Amino acid sequence: MHRHFEDAEEELKQRLLRMGGLVEDMLSYAGKGLLEKDETALKKVYETEAEVNRLHIELDDRALKLIALHQPAAADVRFTVACIKINSDLERIGDQAMNIAQNTEIFLKRPPLAHTFVALPRMVELAASMLKNSLDAFVGKNVELAGAVLSSDTEEDRLKSAVFHAVMGLMQNDASTVQSALCIMLIARNLERIADHATNISEDVIFMVRGTDVRHHSAGTSKIGA
Amino acid sequence: MHRHFEDAEEELKQRLLRMGGLVEDMLSYAGKGLLEKDETALKKVYETEAEVNRLHIELDDRALKLIALHQPAAADVRFTVACIKINSDLERIGDQAMNIAQNTEIFLKRPPLAHTFVALPRMVELAASMLKNSLDAFVGKNVELAGAVLSSDTEEDRLKSAVFHAVMGLMQNDASTVQSALCIMLIARNLERIADHATNISEDVIFMVRGTDVRHHSAGTSKIGA
Repeated sequence: MHRHFEDAEEELKQRLLRMGGLVEDMLSYAGKGLLEKDETALKKVYETEAEVNRLHIELDDRALKLIALHQPAAADVRFTVACIKINSDLERIGDQAMNIAQNTEIFLKRPPLAHTFVALPRMVELAASMLKNSLDAFVGKNVELAGAVLSSDTEEDRLKSAVFHAVMGLMQNDASTVQSALCIMLIARNLERIADHATNISEDVIFMVRGTDVRHHSAGTSKIGA
Repeated sequence: MHRHFEDAEEELKQRLLRMGGLVEDMLSYAGKGLLEKDETALKKVYETEAEVNRLHIELDDRALKLIALHQPAAADVRFTVACIKINSDLERIGDQAMNIAQNTEIFLKRPPLAHTFVALPRMVELAASMLKNSLDAFVGKNVELAGAVLSSDTEEDRLKSAVFHAVMGLMQNDASTVQSALCIMLIARNLERIADHATNISEDVIFMVRGTDVRHHSAGTSKIGA
């Protein structure tokens, strides 16, 4: 029975990592589509979503069965519930990657903007590394790495504010840029939310490993406009 | 033992309803602040958040102990995991109410806009009724009511698009409105996300009652710009 439970736990973990890998791909394709104006990459984002949605449902199902069929100890319950939560955050990161692809498609159909948003490629890179580190922290039960992801979130927020500021200036100076500039603003928001979900995953890893809840321990958990 | 488990389950449910009530209050205060330019109501949003955050952590803790200490049957596991998920969505609705309050504060500091956004009060009302209905569906294990919430989500998306359209027109016609108009756009987005979370709650209720997963069954689960 115990052996069987460990096998089931390992299978759940492998499924979650497969899901994580696919979501990383979606973000990578979306970033490539945006930064290199690559419409083929955007199509790959859409194509990957179906498998992510299928895994999302399968994972929850496996996790519930694991709890119902076995009698897991406290630490195993924490592991299984962490998987359910991380599953949900990964699925939402996939949704955000879809939104980036859709907003990029609209953006690419419009006349190009003269302005270059220098913070945007850094936002893509940081979001991708936060996602990767949160998954690595999960695999390695690495609380320090999870903590590093929490710290990076402030930088992503700062970059988003820089993009918002640039977008606002652009729209105020030239009304013809409003629609394109709004696309960029929405994409910056999508990236910021991906960073938030990676933060959630890291908090779940810390809870899973330590059994302590690190959420809501800073005064300002919400961000203006988020 | 069985009696004890039922008591623990009932206590978990009561905590979740208390959390739901507080989050409903936050949304109601935020809506009042926005629609009646009432800064006292905005303050009440901020004041309520601390208790919501406390309950958020307490609820997860209780739910995990309930699974670890008892040996719940499949339906009870579904109930407990549904509570954990609904807890997370309620907390995020609270975050969105905070964001509405913050964006409203910024909006009220700026010169008033001549334009009236007729879809906005309807968005507030619909989001509040979706939240209420999703909680009522949870209490009454009412799958039909939960299904009605899922249908309402399309209307909230439609209203959000109407606000976006109006905001875009305004900004294109008069650059001096950009900052205020953006606040309205962000608030419409916040309301749409509250409707999304109410939809998640309703999906969890259906899963809890029926044991079937209704997520990802329509082709387009993601929305442009969301």
